[in-house]
This record gives sequence, C-alpha cells and structure tokens, in this order.
Amino acid sequence: EKTVFYIKEKYPEIFVIADAKRGDIGNTSTQYAKAFFETLPFDAITVAPYMGSDSVRPFLTFDDKFVILLALTSNVGANDFQYFKQNDEYLFEKVLKESQNWAGKDKMMYVVGATRAEMLTQVRKIVPEHFLLVPGVGAQGGSLQEVAKYGMTNDCGLIVNSSRAIIYASSDADFDKKAALEAKQVQEEMRKLLQEKKIS
Amino acid sequence: EKTVFYIKEKYPEIFVIADAKRGDIGNTSTQYAKAFFETLPFDAITVAPYMGSDSVRPFLTFDDKFVILLALTSNVGANDFQYFKQNDEYLFEKVLKESQNWAGKDKMMYVVGATRAEMLTQVRKIVPEHFLLVPGVGAQGGSLQEVAKYGMTNDCGLIVNSSRAIIYASSDADFDKKAALEAKQVQEEMRKLLQEKKIS
Repeated sequence: EKTVFYIKEKYPEIFVIADAKRGDIGNTSTQYAKAFFETLPFDAITVAPYMGSDSVRPFLTFDDKFVILLALTSNVGANDFQYFKQNDEYLFEKVLKESQNWAGKDKMMYVVGATRAEMLTQVRKIVPEHFLLVPGVGAQGGSLQEVAKYGMTNDCGLIVNSSRAIIYASSDADFDKKAALEAKQVQEEMRKLLQEKKIS
Repeated sequence: EKTVFYIKEKYPEIFVIADAKRGDIGNTSTQYAKAFFETLPFDAITVAPYMGSDSVRPFLTFDDKFVILLALTSNVGANDFQYFKQNDEYLFEKVLKESQNWAGKDKMMYVVGATRAEMLTQVRKIVPEHFLLVPGVGAQGGSLQEVAKYGMTNDCGLIVNSSRAIIYASSDADFDKKAALEAKQVQEEMRKLLQEKKIS
C-alpha cells in the first residue's frame, strides 16, 4: 500500500498494475474494484476469468482503469485447463473471444505468458491490437525475442514483466546494484527490439 | 482479521472459511497459503482453478487445512466458461476430475452453487464423498431442498452458505434480530433435512 502510493506520488506517469488475480461474484468484485481503483491508486488489475462476465464487469466501470484478464498463463499448471478444447477452440481462446463482448481495448488487456510465445500468433489473430501483459521473461525461462517476434504490434502492444530475475537478483548486500543491473538489461533488450520495429 | 481471531478464540470448533478465491503462480500461492493458514487461523480457503495444479498445490501442504476449489459457481457468469465442453466433459467436470490427482477428500472440497442443483447428480458421480460448499441459497435463489436432494451424502457432505439473505436482512436498527432470524431459519430447514436423512 505504501509502495504504490509512493510510486504514484513520485512518478505519476508510471502505470501501476495490481497483480491480484481477483474474480468473484458481482458485489464482491465491486468491492475489490473500489479498493484497488479508488482507495488505492492502481491503474490496472489482473483478473481470473473462471467465474465469467459478471465477476469481471465491475472492474470495467472505472475511467482510465484496465482489467488484465488471465488468458494463457506462464506457469506449468496452465496446461491443466487453459488448453481444454471445445471443437477447434482452446479455453484461453474462448476467454479472449468471449471477453470482447464485455469491453474493448481501451479497458481490457490480457495475460499471455512469455513461456507460451509459440501461441502468440494465435492470440494475435483474436486480439490483434490489445495490449498483452507478458510475465515469465527471466526466471521462468521466457524469451523476450520470441515474445517480440510473435506478439508485438505497431504500437508495441506488450507490457513485459520480469519479476523474480530482478527481486531475487541477489540475496547479499549488493542486492540494489544487482537488481538494478538485471532490470537495466531487460530494459535495454526491449529498447533494441523496439528500435528494430522502428517504434521508440 | 479481528473477526476471524475473535471467532476462533471464542468458538474454536467453528470451521472458518476464507472465501478469497485465490490462485496464482506457485511462490505467490505459497505466500497466500501462509497468510491464511499460518498468520491467520482459517481452516479453509476457496481457490480458483484457472491456473492449474501448481497454483493450487501450495494450499494443500498444511495439516488439517482445506482447499475449496471453484467448480460450478452460483453466479450467472458461470455459464461463460464453466460449461465449456471437450467431447462429453464440461470444464467444471474436468476440474473435479483433474484435481483428484492433487489431493483427496481429506484436503479438498468443491464449490457447487445452489443455483446449479440440477447439476449436483453429475457432480456426485465424480466426487461421491467430498464435501461441497454450496453458496447461493437465499438471496441468489437456490433451494436448500433441491441441494439436499441431489447433493447430500450419508455424512451430509454439504456446507451450505447463505450470506446476503443474512447480512442484508435489514438496514434498520433491528438488523441483529432480523439477521439472527434469517440465519435461524436456514439452520432449522437444514436440521429437518438432516433428520429426514437420519443424519444429525
């Protein structure tokens, strides 16, 4: 709580995401939405889709705030249900399609794990322009090059997240330097990829 | 937080559920599990299955604590994805089956909404003995009779939850009496249903 207020005060232009993975019956989702978007100054929140439209919609009623819906996550367990397949459609594709009925790209983004870069082409067929939040670069083994190759749009369209490689960069007194270095590396790599695409 | 400590201190035999609907990558789920089961004295937590096994397993490593996995929820949005169907199997059935590989009925329960009583026969084919947490009686329109008819086992096997009919029983000064009355009614109805089944 202190951290997010501090960031927003010092760097109001930074887009702050609550990776809370909520999703509950309507009136509870409404309370969560108020907590993250009104009481706290988050710009976006990750939401799990399992409970469907009425569990997500309360988060979509705030101006300039975003829902980032879990579609295809970076963890191994993603294989258990997200690839469940009805006819020719995977569950994560159904989530991408169905949720288009709830809001457009001005309110909605999707989580697609960097470890699933091979699926980004299919994801982009359904959501060609939406921003994607891409976790799993770094500690989880996802490749930034692959992600950019298959997932980048003309406006970039990617929010790439590296957490553990940074926050666990070192357990010694040099943590601040090691973490900064790690963050800098990802940033630099992203900058080059954007230049190649002539976005900057 | 104060409430749950108060309940556990005054009535240690009461089974307290955190209806938190969590489910995150492994190390985050581990932190949530510690918060709810170690820092706080909850007996069980509801967990969303979308991210699969490694998002749920961290909650299953505590003695005498339960995961209550969302299978078929009581809200309208349940129709969006929970009935997604691969061959002859619905997603919620896949969740019930797949999760049997993670833990047995000594650690796992399932959420099945009272508004889905017609599906309880199918649910019981897959999990004949597991306890089910059944929300949606009362304000959401679920029938306790129907739930008992299709979902009750020889040991009862049901935790029936009525929230809004109780906490919103009255907005006047008589709230305490109205709420107590509402709770008493559900309890009495349940007692009769248990007697009919010769469980008490």
